[in-house]
Amino acid sequence: MNYRIDNLQYCNWSREIFEINREAGLDAVHVTVVYHEDYDEFLTRISEWNELFKNNSDLIFLGKDIRDIEKAKLENKTAIFFGFQNCSPIEDDINLVEKVHELGCRFMQLTYNNQSLLATGCYENVDSGVTNFGKEVIKEMNRVGIVIDMSHSAEKSTLEAIELSQKPIAITHANPSFWYKAKRNKSDTLLKNLSESGGMLGLSLYAHHLKDSSNCKLESFCEMVAKTADLIGVKNIGIGSDLCLNQPDSVVEWMRNGTWTRAKNYGEGSKDKPGFPKQPDWFIDARGFNSLETGLKKIGFNLEEVNDILGNNWFNFYKGIN
Amino acid sequence: MNYRIDNLQYCNWSREIFEINREAGLDAVHVTVVYHEDYDEFLTRISEWNELFKNNSDLIFLGKDIRDIEKAKLENKTAIFFGFQNCSPIEDDINLVEKVHELGCRFMQLTYNNQSLLATGCYENVDSGVTNFGKEVIKEMNRVGIVIDMSHSAEKSTLEAIELSQKPIAITHANPSFWYKAKRNKSDTLLKNLSESGGMLGLSLYAHHLKDSSNCKLESFCEMVAKTADLIGVKNIGIGSDLCLNQPDSVVEWMRNGTWTRAKNYGEGSKDKPGFPKQPDWFIDARGFNSLETGLKKIGFNLEEVNDILGNNWFNFYKGIN
Repeated sequence: MNYRIDNLQYCNWSREIFEINREAGLDAVHVTVVYHEDYDEFLTRISEWNELFKNNSDLIFLGKDIRDIEKAKLENKTAIFFGFQNCSPIEDDINLVEKVHELGCRFMQLTYNNQSLLATGCYENVDSGVTNFGKEVIKEMNRVGIVIDMSHSAEKSTLEAIELSQKPIAITHANPSFWYKAKRNKSDTLLKNLSESGGMLGLSLYAHHLKDSSNCKLESFCEMVAKTADLIGVKNIGIGSDLCLNQPDSVVEWMRNGTWTRAKNYGEGSKDKPGFPKQPDWFIDARGFNSLETGLKKIGFNLEEVNDILGNNWFNFYKGIN
Repeated sequence: MNYRIDNLQYCNWSREIFEINREAGLDAVHVTVVYHEDYDEFLTRISEWNELFKNNSDLIFLGKDIRDIEKAKLENKTAIFFGFQNCSPIEDDINLVEKVHELGCRFMQLTYNNQSLLATGCYENVDSGVTNFGKEVIKEMNRVGIVIDMSHSAEKSTLEAIELSQKPIAITHANPSFWYKAKRNKSDTLLKNLSESGGMLGLSLYAHHLKDSSNCKLESFCEMVAKTADLIGVKNIGIGSDLCLNQPDSVVEWMRNGTWTRAKNYGEGSKDKPGFPKQPDWFIDARGFNSLETGLKKIGFNLEEVNDILGNNWFNFYKGIN
């Protein structure tokens, strides 16, 4: 059995998008439910999702573990797994880790660009690694079953998280910096450490992470996948598209600025290009998985490898999620 | 006119303690109203203080600026200035800096022992300095008029805060490490930077910051004051006793552990000595200011210098607080 999984989307959710994801054959999607929200605001996001689950029960349902991916495949639905891009919902309270897990959270980034109470983000000048509180939270995430996601973290913090975690961690959405140097992309050293510890890299289709940005060619992306597979092995690679379909630009502004600055921070963008970047034309939405299938075959991957990259590797990773 | 000011107390407040502070002649006390509380919990602390102000209006009132210290002197009362030992009440929101100022906050530590969203505490292994959010908050604290307090912060973070702040900062309660090496005490380099920028050092009478702990001799403490005055000048030295009168040991446990760990952290204490340490017998409570007066004269300070150290220097520092 083959599975297709997109391990990161943050869309302006609607029936239309769930239909597109079904058309793309996605059995599971890890969705971002929280960027900067605290615990109470997370509860509001859950209410909104409950409404979406109710109104689209023929297309989606809340996923808790790997059996829900199998169930989704059988029922032609998409299992939705909740994740956080920042640790804000646990606030400063170790006890909230278990609570957010009970409420469905299965992935949590220790940081989002800036320093958090747990670790350092990739936009800080200095990376001090995992903090005292961070060490306690990693133990607790391991215990209750939330995957540590270091997509937006700085390098030293990520290496320490790999070392400290008793379970494999994930970088759900980023690319190798050997292909395109961006603050959010990852070094060879980091990727090797990640894969050697059984961790997963979800390759991103977000233009700011791509060589030539929105003009990135499918061939170039697939060449990068091939080189990444040479570097860390094909079994540790998946897709985390970072699709932000139908989001207004005010959302990316909020993602970057939250409530931490009065000045305007442009993050990966710039004053001239402050909004969401355009998707490359071969990956407008999740149906781009079909382009990837074509491109990956063309670059020389065999069918099993293509299926691994487009979902089976993530599926196997979910075996460790409870 | 001479003023007596204790620029840090965190007592289990009662009429008895306000009477002792009056007996000690204190015109102003900077009180800790928050350790780990968030914004809403700070509002609860304010309600409790409003009750105390109402029931003890013959002894205390809320201080907002230097005129309230003059008023307290005239009316034989003690002006109470609010401060935070952690930045938890502003959560992750720059807009809350102005709000907590409006509600009376005049001092805020950027960190309490551990890493915060703003800077690194003295109990972390690595000190990354002031964070992106921290830089914004320092600007905002300068703008609205909240003093940056780095008593529990790590060295690099403190040096950066001194550099970044447009106004002098304070270390409200700590001692020089040349006298007693403790994680909470401060290096010569740091103290020189502090004083050269117009900042204040409030010397602590808390046993864990004292040479020989609870058995510290008055003479030893006053010798330390004299050496500190040689190092940074007498005008930048005051008292921040760190008195925690009538607090149960559960409070110091909470101060150290908050909600960040399931294991027990003993902070400055130890498994054998987990509770509040005994005060030295010459500084059981604020009436120990009289012992200090005697001791400082004996060590060779003239009357003006003694009055500077016991309150006038803090009074002058309050000129910059609005």
